[in-house]
Amino acid sequence: MEPGDAARPGSGRATGTPPPRLLLLPLLPLLLGWGLRVAAAASASSSGAAAEDSSAMEELATEKEAEESHRQDSVSLLTFILLLTLTILTIWLFKHRRVRFLHETGLAMIYGLIVGVILRYGTPATSGRDKSLSCTQEDRAFSTLLVNVSGKFFEYTLKGEISPGKINSVEQNDMLRKVTFDPEVFFNILLPPIIFHAGYSLKKRHFFRNLGSILAYAFLGTAVSCFIIGNLMYGVVKLMKIMGQLSDKFYYTDCLFFGAIISATDPVTVLAIFNELHADVDLYALLFGESVLNDAVAIVLSSSIVAYQPAGLNTHAFDAAAFFKSVGIFLGIFSGSFTMGAVTGVVTALVTKFTKLHCFPLLETALFFLMSWSTFLLAEACGFTGVVAVLFCGITQAHYTYNNLSVESRSRTKQLFEVLHFLAENFIFSYMGLALFTFQKHVFSPIFIIGAFVAIFLGRAAHIYPLSFFLNLGRRHKIGWNFQHMMMFSGLRGAMAFALAIRDTASYARQMMFTTTLLIVFFTVWIIGGGTTPMLSWLNIRVGVDPDQDPPPNNDSFQVLQGDGPDSARGNRTKQESAWIFRLWYSFDHNYLKPILTHSGPPLTTTLPAWCGLLARCLTSPQVYDNQEPLREEDSDFILTEGDLTLTYGDSTVTANGSSSSHTASTSLEGSRRTKSNSEEVLERDLGMGDQKVSSRGTRLVFPLEDNA
Amino acid sequence: MEPGDAARPGSGRATGTPPPRLLLLPLLPLLLGWGLRVAAAASASSSGAAAEDSSAMEELATEKEAEESHRQDSVSLLTFILLLTLTILTIWLFKHRRVRFLHETGLAMIYGLIVGVILRYGTPATSGRDKSLSCTQEDRAFSTLLVNVSGKFFEYTLKGEISPGKINSVEQNDMLRKVTFDPEVFFNILLPPIIFHAGYSLKKRHFFRNLGSILAYAFLGTAVSCFIIGNLMYGVVKLMKIMGQLSDKFYYTDCLFFGAIISATDPVTVLAIFNELHADVDLYALLFGESVLNDAVAIVLSSSIVAYQPAGLNTHAFDAAAFFKSVGIFLGIFSGSFTMGAVTGVVTALVTKFTKLHCFPLLETALFFLMSWSTFLLAEACGFTGVVAVLFCGITQAHYTYNNLSVESRSRTKQLFEVLHFLAENFIFSYMGLALFTFQKHVFSPIFIIGAFVAIFLGRAAHIYPLSFFLNLGRRHKIGWNFQHMMMFSGLRGAMAFALAIRDTASYARQMMFTTTLLIVFFTVWIIGGGTTPMLSWLNIRVGVDPDQDPPPNNDSFQVLQGDGPDSARGNRTKQESAWIFRLWYSFDHNYLKPILTHSGPPLTTTLPAWCGLLARCLTSPQVYDNQEPLREEDSDFILTEGDLTLTYGDSTVTANGSSSSHTASTSLEGSRRTKSNSEEVLERDLGMGDQKVSSRGTRLVFPLEDNA
Repeated sequence: MEPGDAARPGSGRATGTPPPRLLLLPLLPLLLGWGLRVAAAASASSSGAAAEDSSAMEELATEKEAEESHRQDSVSLLTFILLLTLTILTIWLFKHRRVRFLHETGLAMIYGLIVGVILRYGTPATSGRDKSLSCTQEDRAFSTLLVNVSGKFFEYTLKGEISPGKINSVEQNDMLRKVTFDPEVFFNILLPPIIFHAGYSLKKRHFFRNLGSILAYAFLGTAVSCFIIGNLMYGVVKLMKIMGQLSDKFYYTDCLFFGAIISATDPVTVLAIFNELHADVDLYALLFGESVLNDAVAIVLSSSIVAYQPAGLNTHAFDAAAFFKSVGIFLGIFSGSFTMGAVTGVVTALVTKFTKLHCFPLLETALFFLMSWSTFLLAEACGFTGVVAVLFCGITQAHYTYNNLSVESRSRTKQLFEVLHFLAENFIFSYMGLALFTFQKHVFSPIFIIGAFVAIFLGRAAHIYPLSFFLNLGRRHKIGWNFQHMMMFSGLRGAMAFALAIRDTASYARQMMFTTTLLIVFFTVWIIGGGTTPMLSWLNIRVGVDPDQDPPPNNDSFQVLQGDGPDSARGNRTKQESAWIFRLWYSFDHNYLKPILTHSGPPLTTTLPAWCGLLARCLTSPQVYDNQEPLREEDSDFILTEGDLTLTYGDSTVTANGSSSSHTASTSLEGSRRTKSNSEEVLERDLGMGDQKVSSRGTRLVFPLEDNA
Repeated sequence: MEPGDAARPGSGRATGTPPPRLLLLPLLPLLLGWGLRVAAAASASSSGAAAEDSSAMEELATEKEAEESHRQDSVSLLTFILLLTLTILTIWLFKHRRVRFLHETGLAMIYGLIVGVILRYGTPATSGRDKSLSCTQEDRAFSTLLVNVSGKFFEYTLKGEISPGKINSVEQNDMLRKVTFDPEVFFNILLPPIIFHAGYSLKKRHFFRNLGSILAYAFLGTAVSCFIIGNLMYGVVKLMKIMGQLSDKFYYTDCLFFGAIISATDPVTVLAIFNELHADVDLYALLFGESVLNDAVAIVLSSSIVAYQPAGLNTHAFDAAAFFKSVGIFLGIFSGSFTMGAVTGVVTALVTKFTKLHCFPLLETALFFLMSWSTFLLAEACGFTGVVAVLFCGITQAHYTYNNLSVESRSRTKQLFEVLHFLAENFIFSYMGLALFTFQKHVFSPIFIIGAFVAIFLGRAAHIYPLSFFLNLGRRHKIGWNFQHMMMFSGLRGAMAFALAIRDTASYARQMMFTTTLLIVFFTVWIIGGGTTPMLSWLNIRVGVDPDQDPPPNNDSFQVLQGDGPDSARGNRTKQESAWIFRLWYSFDHNYLKPILTHSGPPLTTTLPAWCGLLARCLTSPQVYDNQEPLREEDSDFILTEGDLTLTYGDSTVTANGSSSSHTASTSLEGSRRTKSNSEEVLERDLGMGDQKVSSRGTRLVFPLEDNA
């Protein structure tokens, strides 16, 4: 192995990796038929004079086969469309009747199961039409083959290696094969819109307020959970070996890999109910933030485990060098993907800021879509993880670019990704239901399955409770016991675990993992999803909270005394809430990044040193001075956080509707900002004054003090 | 050939039709890399123990190759994203500065050309990595091959037949190959959103007012143009043969095929300028309607020509039986696709009407998207043309379903398809620019190209002027000379001609057609697009028209006396305007279809005979009685047409903002409708009264009399 390979996740000794351009097709194979027939006929007609011989019959057979195959493709995709349509109609009925025990994803799975049963037992098995060539190639598999069939040349493209045991199973029910998509479809087509949407729709205010805890849960928690589950499962596997239940190899790294894929929580059901019931926003932020980030962590973690290659023959024992290499790979891929996503987001923000593209929402939306998509491609081209890059791109786009978009583009982009996300998510869950019956290589092992359920329960417990304990030592708003129990309860597994599990089902161990993952997803989505509403009331978690409102001071979800009224010591206390590194970041973001990348924030001329005057004037948009931009809600959400944490400035975007009268307010704010010192008491007064000033105009306000709960 | 085959367009003697599932992939090949590497590594790790031998080196080579190939895929798609991004930014600049001589599509082509030149001459040629297997199969090509490579089995899938001449050209520049997508991508992925959007955004009022003329131009005109171009080109080909310029076969059917593909006009540039300048709405409707429908006609026409298979050995002479079979195929495919599209649209309308899905716009939008997509699949599964079905589905959705959607879903669906359409269209035009340099099999034949330009000019002239003459005999609003000249001038060729031409470039004749089509598209988009504004003013065509307003009575674009004020004879005259078949359809649509499928129109209880009372009550939505639905703009557009043509009822949706006061108005309208006879004088009064009544409320009105011009 070459040294340069170490930096890449997939640098194991791969055999016969299929060329990428071949993997995509199964997604929309159906879009094809008629065209084919015409093209075929056209080529036949143009070379028609030469075709007046006896080969016409055989060609007809080939054509018919292609036509039949195309028809089956169409029917298989129609099956999924039917499933989704049924799901949509039933969801509507459920929402209409306020049924909350079954979420749309659970429903999609049930319909998938039903159709899976029908396909499995209702369609006749057809004979395979495949052909095994006995010709052997000398050394390696080529990506393209030219095969000479009685004088005509046909081009074949490599699809992948087939394990010898599977060669016979290729001859199977055609319909079952058609509905079994290529696993990479899930990872490369269906996950990106889901993940991007998660990043883009992040409720920034509460997310950033709890950023430290979220990062801890996502990074430390997922790692802890992964190792605990991995080790427990290794015990289970040992037990199975003793009991003679294991018919093939199952290594320690396999167990760790299982720990990684099953550690990606996806509480989509719980969050949907939270959203509907307006449950506590901090709990929502913790759960949502954790699940978004731990998806990314789980991807990179699983690839690092795969990259763990101990030296020598002892390929599955512990090796410190290989371990640290894996850790290095983890850090490298994660930071690389993060940077890639952030950079694309920043570029988009700059483009939308310095052009007047917002006059043409269609162009703006198209640009936004293209730039976000290019993140994925860029990351893939550079050897990073596209899905992770897309997540951070989404967050950056929401944080900066969103502020520069026209009102129409904001709703357009949100809605576009919302629809894509909705379709992709329900497609995955439908497919999961279907896969339980149509997937051909299930390995049901009761011991492994029971062990896995126990392990994920213990893994989640060992992740939530100790981490919450340590976090509470540093947190001002403690995470209460009821919150901890709810987080423990909400450890559902969903699309990401499935996508990671289905990616490779070549070995016996992987097949067992896949089957187990599928059952865990079913169980958690149905049982936990259905139990969310009772659990919420049993744990006394507030519902019906306005996300812009703060919880009342004596809210029982917070165990200690908290911000109990607007007193002068608050600024001080909120500052303590976050570590200095976050405060540093916030003030940097607020003073430099926001003004550079968006139309909001204080003018750079006031925040940059004097010698950068020219640059500052170029970069600051005139709107900041003129206050011609109306107050933007999302913006203010973030400003609230900033006010909460840094208390540096009343923001100069504190205006409304671009009225000329607000100009005075901002100017005076600016004036006061310039003249006053940075001491906290003065800032408190400054902010208080700013508030009063603006509130007297009766516009929607930025209340930097409101966010204190 | 079997008898059943006759009904399908592509039933020629096809050789080696590629299996459909293989054709799609090249679109998003890029979405793959990392996953591959991980999956590969994972499979390597799981079978790791067995891999500790010398084959590791060769596997590494395969893996590296796959990785490299994936990287190139990503880069090639990034190239297109870069192109589109550049195009978007430049368009913005152009729109910002009100530059009208170059449309975005023209711009996309220019950027494509530039990048094509760079790719062609700037990248080094790499050696192909393909491998020719000499093993011969006995009888036919199988869709899947299993190849044994030193003990491992690899699965290969059939990509298509390669003509012997091209075998060597497979070893080419890798980058050029990567950016050359599979032609079916254009037809099956990029065209459907463009065509659906065209149908969905049709301005119904002016479209339906000119329906007869549009149908005549689209069907008769395209057929005339196809045959004239085909015959002229056959002359050109004969000439080339005499001059020795023809190096391979070129049949009469090839010429007719060229006539068919080049007859699909696509005045996207002209219409964009019309839209911006608010040029005459009737001219817009004629041009837009013609171009939308003649795309469908050209697809079906070209496939019918391909299906033209004379009996016996004389494969390219005229054969009456084969000709009528082709005509039959044309009619069969067209009506089948039409029915398919209309049925899906109607089903969607019924679903959205009878569920309260409009409370959940996301569900509604998703359903709408899925149903529209399923049209394509259904048509393909049944052997019809998906693209044509999608067009009529779009029209039906706009006509019925749109009325049932919530306000949010209306804008969502419009915007979703607008973005998809924008991206697809500009992608196609970028690709066209690129293809001029990256496509490997151009056949530039100056005589053929000049001949083609002359032929399309003559074909367009022979289609517009005589048809307009005949139409003017029956039309009340004559199509003036300036309109005719403008239509003659606006015969641009675009995406559809390109997609049809690139579909099959296997033979010499097809390659020549492809090159010529590309040049015709370039020329017409750049020259005609740039000349639209001067042409409009030179031809004295009104600009700055409010589409809801009628042209002034003495407008010079109408050659004869026209509706010059609200006189009592108008109803009579407008009735004469359309043939009885259209009037019949309108009254059927208004009295039965609209009330059944949407929330508007008169209650069925009043239009259906008494014995259907129960059914009528079930089908009529309560909104029709209650008038709780606010007036919908699109709706009123159509009602205007109806009022214009049928003058049967003041429509009961003539209300505004769902205010309770409008209830009275509608009730009285309904009352007057019930009591009054159907004679025209009474109806005139009825409508007049309705108008006054409603206008006194100061709401947005339906003016049935306004539409008279």
